Amino acid sequence: MSNLMNRLGRQSKKAAQQLSQLETSQKNECLIQMAQDLENNASTILKANQQDLDQAKENDVSDPMLDRLRLTHERIKEMAEGIRQVSALADPIGVVEKMWRTEDQLMIGQQRVPLGVIGIIFESRPNVTTDAASLCFKSGNAVILRGGKEAYYSNQALVNIMQRTLQNKQLDSAMIQFVNDTSHDVANEMMRLNEYLDVLIPRGGTRLIQRVKNSATVPVIETGTGNNHIFVDSAAQLDMASNILINAKVQRPSVCNAIETLLVHEDIASVFLPMIEEALSPHHVNLRADARAFSYLKKANLASEEDWATEFLDYILAIKVVNSIDEAIEHINHYNSKHSEAIVTDNYHNGQRFLKEVDAAAVYINASTRFTDGFKFGFGAEIGISTQKLHARGPMGLEHLTSSKYIVYGDGQVRA
Amino acid sequence: MSNLMNRLGRQSKKAAQQLSQLETSQKNECLIQMAQDLENNASTILKANQQDLDQAKENDVSDPMLDRLRLTHERIKEMAEGIRQVSALADPIGVVEKMWRTEDQLMIGQQRVPLGVIGIIFESRPNVTTDAASLCFKSGNAVILRGGKEAYYSNQALVNIMQRTLQNKQLDSAMIQFVNDTSHDVANEMMRLNEYLDVLIPRGGTRLIQRVKNSATVPVIETGTGNNHIFVDSAAQLDMASNILINAKVQRPSVCNAIETLLVHEDIASVFLPMIEEALSPHHVNLRADARAFSYLKKANLASEEDWATEFLDYILAIKVVNSIDEAIEHINHYNSKHSEAIVTDNYHNGQRFLKEVDAAAVYINASTRFTDGFKFGFGAEIGISTQKLHARGPMGLEHLTSSKYIVYGDGQVRA
Repeated sequence: MSNLMNRLGRQSKKAAQQLSQLETSQKNECLIQMAQDLENNASTILKANQQDLDQAKENDVSDPMLDRLRLTHERIKEMAEGIRQVSALADPIGVVEKMWRTEDQLMIGQQRVPLGVIGIIFESRPNVTTDAASLCFKSGNAVILRGGKEAYYSNQALVNIMQRTLQNKQLDSAMIQFVNDTSHDVANEMMRLNEYLDVLIPRGGTRLIQRVKNSATVPVIETGTGNNHIFVDSAAQLDMASNILINAKVQRPSVCNAIETLLVHEDIASVFLPMIEEALSPHHVNLRADARAFSYLKKANLASEEDWATEFLDYILAIKVVNSIDEAIEHINHYNSKHSEAIVTDNYHNGQRFLKEVDAAAVYINASTRFTDGFKFGFGAEIGISTQKLHARGPMGLEHLTSSKYIVYGDGQVRA
Repeated sequence: MSNLMNRLGRQSKKAAQQLSQLETSQKNECLIQMAQDLENNASTILKANQQDLDQAKENDVSDPMLDRLRLTHERIKEMAEGIRQVSALADPIGVVEKMWRTEDQLMIGQQRVPLGVIGIIFESRPNVTTDAASLCFKSGNAVILRGGKEAYYSNQALVNIMQRTLQNKQLDSAMIQFVNDTSHDVANEMMRLNEYLDVLIPRGGTRLIQRVKNSATVPVIETGTGNNHIFVDSAAQLDMASNILINAKVQRPSVCNAIETLLVHEDIASVFLPMIEEALSPHHVNLRADARAFSYLKKANLASEEDWATEFLDYILAIKVVNSIDEAIEHINHYNSKHSEAIVTDNYHNGQRFLKEVDAAAVYINASTRFTDGFKFGFGAEIGISTQKLHARGPMGLEHLTSSKYIVYGDGQVRA
């Protein structure tokens, strides 16, 4: 283990202890000041960002990638606004979720406490730095941020400013730390920093998440991949189904809560498929259909086996005609990534069956999968969307960045 | 990856799907029948157990170890009774913990669902087989059990009987599976069986837990180690403190919720230490004291630095005199294993501070740490006591073997 990760880990653990005891008002004041300091130091941030952009251009980075990397006054303002929103959220720490009296007359309460030290490994957009740091801080956790090399200077500048705010508030600046080494070796060390890290959250593409999942011995919360489906039942209102499908596919195809496959009940396929082909045509969606669906469509291609398992994140839609809700549920449970799944139906029983039998973080009746989102769920903000079953599943807000402890009030009780 | 673990994994995943959809009454009937079948097949179990005992004797295994391994008619009855108790517990699956209406008029509910497939790696006592299998089954999870080689024949016999009950009930016997290879290689494969295992729970000594923690890429729930303290404050009732101390130290020293170190406020050390030396003397507790505590004791040894960090699990007590509650909390947070910690005090403010500032799964005022236990907490049974912060912390009952999914009732909503 290098000195770097050991040092960062030790410092973070110490800082986490102080942070866990801060009052809500202290945390909020500090966040509001951080937002202000980011805005006040916009020129420093933009200068650092220009270094990243120059380097990216030298490396012939694509335009969409450059756009994700680029900061502007407007975007810095949005980042600051995001931090202010986090400051306005209710503090989960200290909440006693339930309390009860046991047979031994002990009063036991389950109280929310911070997790401790959270590691975040992320790619691309620098706004993850301020989002993740503010959510971890508000939930009482120290954070170690390890961003990608493409945004190195921007990320470092952002963390420097937040650390200066902490120092000015007489707080340990190690509450928010930055790994200033973007090598794979150091990332691998971070994945095995069990002594200091309580959890590791990767944010980025499938490859990054797989790498972390396969290498980390630190507990990981897996986020992100969404191979999602909409099943349009025979009893669906076809207008509603079409609206939901279009929203879930094209409103923002690059995100994890968009859908990738449409399943259509055979009884309505001959009406619904031509209808949605027309509705989708202005959006230039490439349709990949199974043989039966293909026969109802004008401009589709035949789907391959691989298509059913692919998260396109693009203007591509796989389409399959199914004989029954049973076949739909079986297809979904076989191919999905357990993220978000929807049925469109007016049939009460089929709706209830879908909710019960489909295995995913979020299952919908008659709504777009695009609602799987911390803001839309009412959590106020999110650190990511968990697709694993342990600890947290679905959109993760402040509460999901906490653990609990049992507080026990006794009166001299001993065990018989 | 060997064929064995891949095959078990695949079979368990398939069985988990069926198990997740069983009705509570089906699960309960099956558990009650399992209990009956274990009692009816006691002679088969005892014969298998004799094979383990014979082998253990050949290997010169110690008497306490032989005792832990030995099954009797009485112990088989206890195991069956344990399963019946699990059948009587409330089913956590399907419970909607909370439900709310969002700004978009979606109704979102958070519903308990099984985790999927749980791996258990355990040592020694065969009763873990039936305890773990029944808890996993009731919570809708398939389980893969990998016991130690010393109880190989007993564990296998127990699983065989439970599998036959499943078959007789027309259920997939892979809901409860047994790894019939006790090699380290196969255990290591199980720790990396991410494709099929949703969580891995080691049950056993510190060495086993450390090995799993350092090798597993499957999410692990860490259980067990308890380096626990009692701090007797200057404002304590000394009789109460003595009762609690004796209970927490000697009622059952070999368990993880017993205490290892006594911290005494300097103001009462000269009275309290001689008092507890006398109270502990019938129990032959070896006292290891710091220099100040040593001066008040007749038969103590001087404690080494290592003693503060050791979980003795024996009739040994480390003792330290502290100047203040601050020093007590600092000592505890530095050396403890985050399991169970207690203060004895009549001072309201010190009690509240201790609850807030001590970092542990369970923190007590005026009660013995021996209450950290699924039964005593009112959970009915436990699969272990988690000392990690992710997913579950403290005694883990049925509810802690579940995940959740969001069920979303819409009316055609799409995202703007």
